[in-house]
Amino acid sequence: MTRKIITGYSNPTIKFVRSLRDKKHRRRERRFLAEGLRLLTDARESGRLPELLLMATGREAHPLLDDLEQAVAAAGGDVIEVPLDILAKVTGKDNPQAVCGVFVEWDTGLSTLDRAAAPIWLVAQAMRDPGNLGTMLRTADAVGAGGLILIDDCVDPFSVEAVRASMGAIFTQHLAQARWSDFLVWLRGGPGQLVAASLREAVPYRGAAYASPCFVMVGNESRGLPEDYEMACDLRVTMPMKGRADSLNAAVAAAVLAYEVLAALN
Amino acid sequence: MTRKIITGYSNPTIKFVRSLRDKKHRRRERRFLAEGLRLLTDARESGRLPELLLMATGREAHPLLDDLEQAVAAAGGDVIEVPLDILAKVTGKDNPQAVCGVFVEWDTGLSTLDRAAAPIWLVAQAMRDPGNLGTMLRTADAVGAGGLILIDDCVDPFSVEAVRASMGAIFTQHLAQARWSDFLVWLRGGPGQLVAASLREAVPYRGAAYASPCFVMVGNESRGLPEDYEMACDLRVTMPMKGRADSLNAAVAAAVLAYEVLAALN
Repeated sequence: MTRKIITGYSNPTIKFVRSLRDKKHRRRERRFLAEGLRLLTDARESGRLPELLLMATGREAHPLLDDLEQAVAAAGGDVIEVPLDILAKVTGKDNPQAVCGVFVEWDTGLSTLDRAAAPIWLVAQAMRDPGNLGTMLRTADAVGAGGLILIDDCVDPFSVEAVRASMGAIFTQHLAQARWSDFLVWLRGGPGQLVAASLREAVPYRGAAYASPCFVMVGNESRGLPEDYEMACDLRVTMPMKGRADSLNAAVAAAVLAYEVLAALN
Repeated sequence: MTRKIITGYSNPTIKFVRSLRDKKHRRRERRFLAEGLRLLTDARESGRLPELLLMATGREAHPLLDDLEQAVAAAGGDVIEVPLDILAKVTGKDNPQAVCGVFVEWDTGLSTLDRAAAPIWLVAQAMRDPGNLGTMLRTADAVGAGGLILIDDCVDPFSVEAVRASMGAIFTQHLAQARWSDFLVWLRGGPGQLVAASLREAVPYRGAAYASPCFVMVGNESRGLPEDYEMACDLRVTMPMKGRADSLNAAVAAAVLAYEVLAALN
């Protein structure tokens, strides 16, 4: 196996990889970055390989890294060694991981989803925080959901921060992006119960009549869900709020609700 | 009421306020920053007033801001007007809030806690992410917890990010910081059930025998809880993990567990 070695920061490949930290370039190139051996191993085990693998020179040897390198090369991808300081600049971290990969984005249309494949789906509307989005993917994996559907203008799920927060679930969970009106048409084209945490005409979240496939929806971090979105739901549920605040962090609300749905459907 | 007006970025007061973005300066000064009218109003309603209030010149009038200004002045605090661009540099945000306050930190020793005051307490060990820490404070408020106890080396709960993520709960929830050994001595000095999410000799989290006051503990984001910490718990519970991952985001795990405890104790 041959490896390329790049030692200069101005190398076009390095510039290209670095550019993928910006959403604009990700959209244009339809590619994104994932960092760290654990994340890249999760990807490999989920059948996703980077088309380009960057490894730091002088990294510690690791059998999983050997496996990854061989798989990328066998699939026709590029394996490149770079000095650690260049890798640090690419990934923008002071303490960079010793490995980073460039992945081709995949289709995130609603038509790629098979709603019958799982009893729970998570839905986020206008979610702005990449950490929350990645955390929702991670929660979706944990509750055995089919995936995450992003409604309206959400933060980019392929951002470095969201990919990192997903702890690998970006590679295992299905992901769709749609406008609200298109989502509603798709949803009503088959079985599916749309559930939102709400204060409007809501029933207690414990003991509510959840039904599979159940689509658990949370809204924007600051504004919550628009009222007409809530009213379009099949079920509105409310969680106890014992303190001064009237809402939970969006990713937390989705998780508490999703675990309740999981228990109810089992 | 007289207001000072500061127009220069090199003014010592501005430099002082800006320095509070750094942990080192917060520790030395025992003061921290909170931004935004909503957060400062939460603080006021919880009986906490900033000793220094910065307001942008040209801000929109708001009755809550008038209330805040009067309360700060009445308590002997300083109210200062600054141009928006200076306020932006102080708070380090492109889109700064029009108001920001400097608060005196309070005592966070274990002896300040009254365990009998609430049926649930949250405990975080070596938590590194300020967003997770703030989110746990927000969750604690929502489940009617007494507060959050930080074990070992956690991120600073008075960082701007943690204060923001707490959505005001930093001002309503009790907060304590302690080493594990000191916490255990304190805990065993009175009633209290220590519960952790764990994979070791654990029972299902639903239907477990929770007891008040219940201390719900989660560990570091990467490493989880040390094994001996888990074994010191009165109850170890496990949550379903249906996917590839074996853990949830720490703040999410705390919330799912805390809501279960809340339901069980009611």
